[in-house]
Amino acid sequence: MLPILRALRDDGPVSRAELGDRLGLTRPRLTSEVERLVKAGFLAEAGMAASRGGRRSTLVEIHPRLRFAAVDLGAGSIDVEVVNGRLEPLVAYREPADIRKGPKAILHRVSELLAKARAEGVYDRLDAVGIGVPGPVSFRDGVPVSPPIMPGWDRYPVRELLAREHGCPVVVDNDVNIMAVGERHGGVARSVDDFLFVKIGTGIGCGIHLTGGVYRGVDGCAGDIGHIQVDASGPTCSCGNTGCLEAVFSGAALARDALAAARSGTSPALAERLARAHRADTHELTAKDVADGAAEGDVVCIQLIREGGRRLGGVLAALVSFANPSMIVIGGGLAQLGHVLLAEIRSVVYRRSLPLATGNLPVVLSELEGRAGVTGAAVLASDAAFEQIP
Amino acid sequence: MLPILRALRDDGPVSRAELGDRLGLTRPRLTSEVERLVKAGFLAEAGMAASRGGRRSTLVEIHPRLRFAAVDLGAGSIDVEVVNGRLEPLVAYREPADIRKGPKAILHRVSELLAKARAEGVYDRLDAVGIGVPGPVSFRDGVPVSPPIMPGWDRYPVRELLAREHGCPVVVDNDVNIMAVGERHGGVARSVDDFLFVKIGTGIGCGIHLTGGVYRGVDGCAGDIGHIQVDASGPTCSCGNTGCLEAVFSGAALARDALAAARSGTSPALAERLARAHRADTHELTAKDVADGAAEGDVVCIQLIREGGRRLGGVLAALVSFANPSMIVIGGGLAQLGHVLLAEIRSVVYRRSLPLATGNLPVVLSELEGRAGVTGAAVLASDAAFEQIP
Repeated sequence: MLPILRALRDDGPVSRAELGDRLGLTRPRLTSEVERLVKAGFLAEAGMAASRGGRRSTLVEIHPRLRFAAVDLGAGSIDVEVVNGRLEPLVAYREPADIRKGPKAILHRVSELLAKARAEGVYDRLDAVGIGVPGPVSFRDGVPVSPPIMPGWDRYPVRELLAREHGCPVVVDNDVNIMAVGERHGGVARSVDDFLFVKIGTGIGCGIHLTGGVYRGVDGCAGDIGHIQVDASGPTCSCGNTGCLEAVFSGAALARDALAAARSGTSPALAERLARAHRADTHELTAKDVADGAAEGDVVCIQLIREGGRRLGGVLAALVSFANPSMIVIGGGLAQLGHVLLAEIRSVVYRRSLPLATGNLPVVLSELEGRAGVTGAAVLASDAAFEQIP
Repeated sequence: MLPILRALRDDGPVSRAELGDRLGLTRPRLTSEVERLVKAGFLAEAGMAASRGGRRSTLVEIHPRLRFAAVDLGAGSIDVEVVNGRLEPLVAYREPADIRKGPKAILHRVSELLAKARAEGVYDRLDAVGIGVPGPVSFRDGVPVSPPIMPGWDRYPVRELLAREHGCPVVVDNDVNIMAVGERHGGVARSVDDFLFVKIGTGIGCGIHLTGGVYRGVDGCAGDIGHIQVDASGPTCSCGNTGCLEAVFSGAALARDALAAARSGTSPALAERLARAHRADTHELTAKDVADGAAEGDVVCIQLIREGGRRLGGVLAALVSFANPSMIVIGGGLAQLGHVLLAEIRSVVYRRSLPLATGNLPVVLSELEGRAGVTGAAVLASDAAFEQIP
């Protein structure tokens, strides 16, 4: 009985009477469902509720023993959380890790982190695992499919191996999709059904959330907007085409453009940061350098962000005309470029999309930022556990 | 009981036993539902079915008395059909009419045509009306909303007036949405759930069909792809922006470009047709002239079509990456440009979209052509009638 468990997960303990009212269930129906969920170990009695005038009703809550693991694999990081049935993190690990090390090494490290949590008494057994990866996923099969930045992961049986290891349901999804789910659960898109979550990180992707949940498309690759062409004479992309959005504006593209600006001497702020990078022996600039330069008023840095925002805004304007969503959420590492980026995106979207579609369309930054992914992974994990109750 | 009626509407008479099997209904449940639908006048007994070994089962069918009106208003035409419960047309009228005459004149003509059908004994009373209009519609309110090419129609109470006139449920939708529904019901997209129907006529629009039916977006204007920018330095569009897809490639844009080519003398085929048009005192060229010129091998005509296909293909490639549909259907008047257009669209989509999304993606011409709209209007009308059964 998904609605009961979702209500207790999202809103906390509630009296039987109120639960029945809220979900429109008759008393006998509610009683039998509650009994079944108690028996399955997903629901627990939690004392008596305050009186509503008549007989006092007992409180029910999501079972305090439930544990879900939420994993968010980025291009260069591992995030692991173990959460309770209310999806509150009991432990959270975050560390750098190169996804290109391949599935064995990365998933081994995930296992070590989970074993550590278990050794610390955070959980005894897991009820479900949710995991997001930075590439296309066959949601049905639980495997990555031809992920461009994940060598060695193509069709690697992630779900099967984790399910065997932990003896519980496992959900594998694209990182952007789990971020959209996370933002819907606990972020700026709470109570919004139809929205787009745009992640600007090393690459660019989009999670499409419709009324029924994440829309994945026929092959599971819906939302892959990073390779939409924005400039026929633009730079060559890692995919082999020219002028893809991702080749023009993304963490990688911005780092490349920042390096060029630093070397050409047009940007004092970036030149200074590059000199510092040389002294620290990293020899690289990142999106953060551009953000910091812009904050200091460096004109080239501001131009780089505005130009990127204009390109992304053009693509989003087209998607707004096509999909007519009720909100656009901007997340991922480059969301740190902040309000200069947001202002440029908004300006293009509001100017270029159909007025009817932008009349009430907020374009906003993610509230959960780095935690959107793990939050969404926990939501998907819990849903998977709930759905398996006989 | 929507599934029973839809099955009988789409597949014809069937035995009670088979119907129960197909829909997974227990015998008592089926009996009570059938009884209710017979009483409501939507279902009729139709003799005995052939034996399946046991007791012979009675045949049931959609009630032969049911009548739906299907109306498809184009920029320059009215299509009216009255169909039976199987959605077979009993009468079909098609005539030119300028939508800019305004709602009173156009809807009056629709009423006259329906009155004619009634006088001829086609129907006694209508069970529902479905109507498509060439502009954005608030599906919930049953009114056009700021339709650019329909002066006088903004928020005109189309549904309310037709419902009062005919005393039955009325559905008002965008012309492209009803074409998508029609193609899903009886055309090339039969049995396909997630597909895009792209109409290239005077303007350009897109119907988005997902598993649950037409996706209309938050404000009902999803699919309005005609104003996506494809060329920042392109011609000014009727919407005030520059370089919209519709300003670059559509019936109106092609007529404009054909006229320029005829006058400049670069295209002998178009120059000859323009001379003919002058003699006939019309002074205009149309997309059909370009199609005919291309069929004769006129290079400029072929180039115009290929250039248009390239522009449209670029937009569709982006939408394929975003939505990952299982089919793209091309319809509307300019679908007559045929295989030159289709080849160019395919070439761009297959080259520019994510390989995973195009692996099994047919890009095909509409099968129903001019009848897609009325067919979809009839489907939506029947659904509305079925949904109102108490």
